[in-house]
Amino acid sequence: VIPTGKDGCENVAVGEVVASERPRPGGRAARVVAAVHAATFELLEEVGYELLQLPQVAERADVNRTTVYRRWPTKAVLVADLLASLMQVNVPTPDTGTLQGDLEQLLTQVAAVLTSRSVRAVLRASMTVADDSPDVQRAQAAFWDERFARSGALIERAVARAELPAGTDPRTVLETAASPIYLRSLFTSETITPEYINQVAYRTTRAFGDQKLQH
Amino acid sequence: VIPTGKDGCENVAVGEVVASERPRPGGRAARVVAAVHAATFELLEEVGYELLQLPQVAERADVNRTTVYRRWPTKAVLVADLLASLMQVNVPTPDTGTLQGDLEQLLTQVAAVLTSRSVRAVLRASMTVADDSPDVQRAQAAFWDERFARSGALIERAVARAELPAGTDPRTVLETAASPIYLRSLFTSETITPEYINQVAYRTTRAFGDQKLQH
Repeated sequence: VIPTGKDGCENVAVGEVVASERPRPGGRAARVVAAVHAATFELLEEVGYELLQLPQVAERADVNRTTVYRRWPTKAVLVADLLASLMQVNVPTPDTGTLQGDLEQLLTQVAAVLTSRSVRAVLRASMTVADDSPDVQRAQAAFWDERFARSGALIERAVARAELPAGTDPRTVLETAASPIYLRSLFTSETITPEYINQVAYRTTRAFGDQKLQH
Repeated sequence: VIPTGKDGCENVAVGEVVASERPRPGGRAARVVAAVHAATFELLEEVGYELLQLPQVAERADVNRTTVYRRWPTKAVLVADLLASLMQVNVPTPDTGTLQGDLEQLLTQVAAVLTSRSVRAVLRASMTVADDSPDVQRAQAAFWDERFARSGALIERAVARAELPAGTDPRTVLETAASPIYLRSLFTSETITPEYINQVAYRTTRAFGDQKLQH
């Protein structure tokens, strides 16, 4: 039994994650993971990380408590696992032919993902967890490494097109491009317009590009 | 009675905020605000936003419940007020003579502030609140406007020195410079080295600077 979210956005986000976690469709273990993740998403939104309790997750997911405790001994482990599952969502890496176009498409995707209440709830929980547990902090670092690595091809293609100097670190470019979107979406609540995304992409290109080749 | 934090870092952060809120030292109203803010800081760290309850805040602050409810009818209002009080912390605006130097100093300050458990707790709470309440979202937007406006002089001086083109929007430059620091500090848990800060400042200067004047 996979509980559904309260609105369309949540269903999309949860659905994507659930789908990505089913390498062997129909397997019991995969069903348990999907149900527990979906239940955790919901409860993080409803009550937050501090109030979240594993027995409650088990009940909502319709999974045996013992099964839950065996795989996720603490809620910190569960949240780290949720982050890892978000990582598996297959967002296609843009390939528009220009760095500007690719970054615009990527940032539009990032902005869309960050509107999901589920994703926001997991990010919030992960801030809480990271403050307390070095293990989970490492798991999170791995999540972000993977997340950024997935879009690395976009930067490598820009290097191949000589839009960026050889040896440019993909992670740093992507982090620079994405971070203003995170700040606006999660903290300052400013609107993220296509115009803003266009400018962020342009500034990122200028910040890293070979200036001799610009203009 | 102003409760103190659990370690040196917290005491510094709470102390700064408390001090800034005492335009009339010794006034009863100012003492109440200081005590309630300090208690809220502590409880946000200890139990988080979801578990925070106003009566608990009143007890910890040694302030009458009725007094608390009169000024802060909901915990969302209280968190918005805490954010506003953070805004009043007087961090001197750097004035090193170059945009690169000023940005490095500013980002070093930002990175230091973001290590405070109190500040992290308030930011986490504000993410929770903003998802629920448009009023508080507006209060937060005002907080960030003010926060960025305070460092605006730094950008204006760079424009005066012709390091940045006339008409450059100070807020956008500061947001671009600060956001990678927020991302690393709050989410990816990567170390923020002086070298990284140096590079972020350099890239920001390149992204906004007049390229004819560079190199």
